[in-house]
Amino acid sequence: MASRLVFSVCWFVLLLSSVCGGRRLRGESTALTLESVRKFLTREEDSIVFSLIERAKYPRNAPAYDPSYLGRATKFHALSLVDLFVRETEAVQAKDGRYQNPVEIPFFPKHMTLTSVPPYNFPNELHAAAASVNVSNTIWRKYFDEWLPQITSQGDDGNYAPTAAADLVCLQALSRRIHYGRYVAEAKYREAPQDYNTAIRAKDRDALMKLLTFESQEDAVKRRVEEKAKVFGQDVTLGKRVDDSSNATNYKVDPVVVYRLYGDWVIPMTKMVQVEYLLRRLD
Amino acid sequence: MASRLVFSVCWFVLLLSSVCGGRRLRGESTALTLESVRKFLTREEDSIVFSLIERAKYPRNAPAYDPSYLGRATKFHALSLVDLFVRETEAVQAKDGRYQNPVEIPFFPKHMTLTSVPPYNFPNELHAAAASVNVSNTIWRKYFDEWLPQITSQGDDGNYAPTAAADLVCLQALSRRIHYGRYVAEAKYREAPQDYNTAIRAKDRDALMKLLTFESQEDAVKRRVEEKAKVFGQDVTLGKRVDDSSNATNYKVDPVVVYRLYGDWVIPMTKMVQVEYLLRRLD
Repeated sequence: MASRLVFSVCWFVLLLSSVCGGRRLRGESTALTLESVRKFLTREEDSIVFSLIERAKYPRNAPAYDPSYLGRATKFHALSLVDLFVRETEAVQAKDGRYQNPVEIPFFPKHMTLTSVPPYNFPNELHAAAASVNVSNTIWRKYFDEWLPQITSQGDDGNYAPTAAADLVCLQALSRRIHYGRYVAEAKYREAPQDYNTAIRAKDRDALMKLLTFESQEDAVKRRVEEKAKVFGQDVTLGKRVDDSSNATNYKVDPVVVYRLYGDWVIPMTKMVQVEYLLRRLD
Repeated sequence: MASRLVFSVCWFVLLLSSVCGGRRLRGESTALTLESVRKFLTREEDSIVFSLIERAKYPRNAPAYDPSYLGRATKFHALSLVDLFVRETEAVQAKDGRYQNPVEIPFFPKHMTLTSVPPYNFPNELHAAAASVNVSNTIWRKYFDEWLPQITSQGDDGNYAPTAAADLVCLQALSRRIHYGRYVAEAKYREAPQDYNTAIRAKDRDALMKLLTFESQEDAVKRRVEEKAKVFGQDVTLGKRVDDSSNATNYKVDPVVVYRLYGDWVIPMTKMVQVEYLLRRLD
């Protein structure tokens, strides 16, 4: 218990130190630009669509999410296999330094072990405020409750560990994308701080949200991820390419669901992260 | 040390029991057919190509493979970060039951922990011989020494844990595909046992290899995975689809490398697994 507390404290100190250089770097020139942000987000779309397709390879596999499944077999009565799997896998990845990079945020920071690898000098591109912007709990809940049922078919094939591993890849990709809102906001702020300062000082969320909203851009992103779900989720056969008129059932994950995943959730959540970050940007 | 020995023995018993039903089932009708095998292998191609593209997102990241990198920081002087990462991640996945399914084979069986999930009744489709057909060491060596340098660019971005996680997904997909040769051989054997019995009794590897070789089929598979590398590895933009005449540098992993990965390695290794399985099929 005591050692767990020490780990948690050390983890928080590590997290804080990994982003707190932002204050020092404010105004300095780093690699973070609107162009680098756009490139990162576009590449992450591929990772997200791949991860959803790989999760959809397995059926729902409900026992992996049911705490009573492990209740008889372990001492962790209130935890599901996926809960335990993610906790323990994140602990291995933390030990190997995954969360030294502030782009990566764990779902179970309280259960982190200390990293055992030498420190790596990741660029400090964020304001210290970034450490307190965290929507992991919401991502976890929405992924499992709302989106997972829409990308998987009913059924149980017993592959619970590969299923949990596929879920973790989805969760990590979605979390990285959504929490990257901190970088998006920082890049936008650096581009034109005067546009944001008044709204930040007035703590005006609506004004900030308005400043951050570009509907035509969002529409293009939604249509592009839908297209990616078609291209990556088709059955590739020699001498034949995907056809827009194809029936949706040919795709491994429904492109319309991916369109809505972005439109109803990923984009709004990323913007919420941007607003929360900007509200603390002048602290 | 003693507990590790107990774990190893238990793991071996578990592995053996998970496949030894094959002897009982010989001749019984199960879901394993040439059609189901073909379907599985085709779907695995997508997983393999996705995993290579996701690994190629990170540069080489040489420190992850260099035992001296961890030498100063841990007691495991002779192990690299990737060695440790895969061992510990496999242990988590073993505990959650991954290797109850004989389709999945760990790279570090000696370091497995016992599963803590209830047993799942996976179909026993293989002869007991399957338990002794294992080319994991070769897969590990060839992946890191020969193929990884061809799918990654030089460089070091410090993301060693995500890199190791991406390597593990590649390794698991490649291992599942190559070791699926046991199922391929079983399906072929059930289709026409008389075609194989003479060569098996004579322990004639060359004759078996000849019986298992269909060059036109292999050629189609190679061309299809090359096509998948183009389709899945393109930069998808709205209103534009992949074009065969595109320059290879547009793809996230070189399609020609994927063609050779299959032609020079994955297909021959799968056939080797088939031969080794068949040689034991009448034991």
